[in-house]
Amino acid sequence: MHVFFLQVCEWREPEELAQLLDLELKATGESQDRLLQRVQDVAKYSIKTSHPRFLNQQFGGVDYHALAGRFLTEALNTNLFTYEVAPVFVLLEMEVLKSLRQLVGWTQGDGIFCPGGSASNMYAMNLARYRLFPEVKSQGLYGLPRLTVFTSSQSHYSVKKGAAFLGIGIDNVIVVKVDDGGCMIPEDLDEKIKLSKSQGAVPFLVSCTSGTTVQGAFDPLDRIADVCEKHKIWMHVDAAWGGSVLFSEQHRHLMKGVDRANSVAWNPHKMLLAGLQCSAFLLQDTTNLLKRCHSANATYLFQQDKFYDVNLDCGDKTVQCSRKVDCLKLWLMWKAIGSSGMAQRVDKAFIHARYLEEQMKKREGFHLVCKPEFVNICFWFIPPSMRGKEQNADYQDRLGKVAPAIKERMMKQGTMMVGYQPLADKVNFFRLVVLSPQVSTKDMDFFLDEIERLGNDL
Amino acid sequence: MHVFFLQVCEWREPEELAQLLDLELKATGESQDRLLQRVQDVAKYSIKTSHPRFLNQQFGGVDYHALAGRFLTEALNTNLFTYEVAPVFVLLEMEVLKSLRQLVGWTQGDGIFCPGGSASNMYAMNLARYRLFPEVKSQGLYGLPRLTVFTSSQSHYSVKKGAAFLGIGIDNVIVVKVDDGGCMIPEDLDEKIKLSKSQGAVPFLVSCTSGTTVQGAFDPLDRIADVCEKHKIWMHVDAAWGGSVLFSEQHRHLMKGVDRANSVAWNPHKMLLAGLQCSAFLLQDTTNLLKRCHSANATYLFQQDKFYDVNLDCGDKTVQCSRKVDCLKLWLMWKAIGSSGMAQRVDKAFIHARYLEEQMKKREGFHLVCKPEFVNICFWFIPPSMRGKEQNADYQDRLGKVAPAIKERMMKQGTMMVGYQPLADKVNFFRLVVLSPQVSTKDMDFFLDEIERLGNDL
Ligand SMILES: Cc1ncc(COP(=O)(O)O)c(C=O)c1O
Ligand SMILES: Cc1ncc(COP(=O)(O)O)c(C=O)c1O
Repeated sequence: MHVFFLQVCEWREPEELAQLLDLELKATGESQDRLLQRVQDVAKYSIKTSHPRFLNQQFGGVDYHALAGRFLTEALNTNLFTYEVAPVFVLLEMEVLKSLRQLVGWTQGDGIFCPGGSASNMYAMNLARYRLFPEVKSQGLYGLPRLTVFTSSQSHYSVKKGAAFLGIGIDNVIVVKVDDGGCMIPEDLDEKIKLSKSQGAVPFLVSCTSGTTVQGAFDPLDRIADVCEKHKIWMHVDAAWGGSVLFSEQHRHLMKGVDRANSVAWNPHKMLLAGLQCSAFLLQDTTNLLKRCHSANATYLFQQDKFYDVNLDCGDKTVQCSRKVDCLKLWLMWKAIGSSGMAQRVDKAFIHARYLEEQMKKREGFHLVCKPEFVNICFWFIPPSMRGKEQNADYQDRLGKVAPAIKERMMKQGTMMVGYQPLADKVNFFRLVVLSPQVSTKDMDFFLDEIERLGNDL
Repeated sequence: MHVFFLQVCEWREPEELAQLLDLELKATGESQDRLLQRVQDVAKYSIKTSHPRFLNQQFGGVDYHALAGRFLTEALNTNLFTYEVAPVFVLLEMEVLKSLRQLVGWTQGDGIFCPGGSASNMYAMNLARYRLFPEVKSQGLYGLPRLTVFTSSQSHYSVKKGAAFLGIGIDNVIVVKVDDGGCMIPEDLDEKIKLSKSQGAVPFLVSCTSGTTVQGAFDPLDRIADVCEKHKIWMHVDAAWGGSVLFSEQHRHLMKGVDRANSVAWNPHKMLLAGLQCSAFLLQDTTNLLKRCHSANATYLFQQDKFYDVNLDCGDKTVQCSRKVDCLKLWLMWKAIGSSGMAQRVDKAFIHARYLEEQMKKREGFHLVCKPEFVNICFWFIPPSMRGKEQNADYQDRLGKVAPAIKERMMKQGTMMVGYQPLADKVNFFRLVVLSPQVSTKDMDFFLDEIERLGNDL
């Protein structure tokens, strides 16, 4: 018998939880016993994201080699900015970046780990801008023409956040249309670029997505590269979510053309289970653009009269000062399971996704939003009371309330976690992301049974 | 007898270290034995930043309660963006921010943890700009007047990096003069603001420093607040390094006037030993400015039809998506030692600094760069061969080479680590930062002996 003693979640209302945790910070310290109890409480009421039935986001599951690397990182507590204080990690980071670049198809280039894919996407924006207008670093955008960025309507919101933060403005992120599968339409991109130019703006960045957040769509990189080349625009690939398919011989075709990009953002903390945070920003550039764009040459940190090769002091490539070590966990996991182990993990996630898709087709009440290209399974659950009533005026309204209602029950009972969202004109639907190698077919059958159990009376 | 078996550093040349670590990532995985050996190698060749003789940067030392919190954070591996996936941490973060704000002197306000003080400083810049020109979020800087930022010549380089990144431009960071102690001169600030206005620019941010990186100077906040009020400019306090004095009754006067600021950046990963990364951005604002400025309202994450109070979903206050949990370690440490324990830690660091200062005065060859106001001890070591030769034409040149030479020997022998840098017209000098509670007077005597030993023949 297969029994889960551990729930995914021990739901408590915020007020109750605040009480249970006894949050207040006081003048005096506490006994070791009391502290141990606190550690237990924190663990008890936290979400068990490594539980095989946590499918709420793209970071479920756990890899124990990576976890060992994370503990070691914490114990060693150093700053990845100079060889002086992080000799091992400077070398490890270079090696990991090189290996990731090789998977992209580049024999040379540059890169850096960032605190998240959002930051990586911002780096692409800043570099593209700087390549076109190097004076922007000293003089800012003042006096420059209006700059425009292009990305699909299903790209991640960090493109817009980045545009706001970097002073470009959200309205200057031009939204390109997608096809039914959620992939950017290159012809529309071409037209939007021409239109923007005709309006006096300067298009400087196309941000493609490999693995969109909700649908898991892959933009057609080769055809987008043609458009970017034609217009001489920086091509960035946000592969935060999908990048890991590059490990798989079987699935890497989804990113065909990625080697033609100028930059790639790839989050091993998602599909590869490296643990938060682990996000690589990769560049094809060999002209030291990253450092030229970001450096401030602080003399207290990046002294030029050091006794070793100061090119190893990678910190000035970033806009950070302190920088957490995010590479060790990935390096250790990679050493442990090899590229072939990574590929297997990716392939297994696809197999899981196909399994779920097949099972859903066999069950009444599960309705796929779109044919999954990746491991995101987007679907509506139609409760029995609504089946066959698609023509009713209030059908869509009612359908939009089903997922939130099931979600509430699911969390309060703590049996599993899965996310939902609306998308464009589609009302709330669930998105299952099956990436953890700990997930079994039993777990997957359980998801479907559980959604039926929780939603059958709605 | 007091013997250190463990060195601070096992120096290896990069090429040799790369060989020792056998960096390459391969197709197949490795045995557990081999992996254990790797873990040992990583630890062996990494810098021991928790060693009491590591004084190279502002993050030396270790607090074991915080370390436990960090391990727990890694084990629980969740994302601090919604109450749904981080119920405990959402509440903990709110509590810690509230307690930090109380120390600043605010009974209400807002805030968020950022991946580093540099990011916190950028947030201040973005908010100040948005408050003045809300349209910047949608339209960008295009068409706006030239915006200027004011900061002292000794402020942290992240102010310039932030200005470049946000499209303001480094040339629009106006450098304000400092007095001999390294503190911003408010009269010069006032003049520079007037000058900038007269040139058609719009001054929008003054970034003061509480605890400058090199000298440890505290800008006179009260007098700067007067200038900011007069010109209606956002006052930000970069207290990344010095903020922790607020715990100490004896030393908090250094930040008198901080409650008049609009925002404060404070890094508990520095003086409080919370572990990297831990950086709080605090705001006096109660109008939800942080969220209004940064939000993108992603419907897949920040659904408004959730069954709990969605104001708890703090993620849209940031420009990140994934966000590491940085609050647990601080909360746990604070619970363990209380505010009084934190205060003692700060007071002890001051006592250490005074001890070092006194000892240096007693020894020939140690020459303070300036009277320390904080726990940064800046000094030149004058080797016997140079003493009394201050008038020689090559004296400054030679002096500038002493610290790098001693540093090289120190690292190659691995006995201790301390940083050096030039500053303005001053040639290379050492900066000792004594913050770890594990440092003893024996360690401090050792520093001085060791610098003499390593530098006496220069
Ligand atoms: C396609 C895509 N890009 C970027 C991001 C942002 O990455 P991060 O959460 O590390 O900032 C995400 C996160 O979900 C994503 O799905
Ligand atoms: C005064 C000051 N401000 C800001 C920073 C940057 O903080 P972080 O390293 O967390 O980005 C530092 C770091 O040394 C600092 O000393």
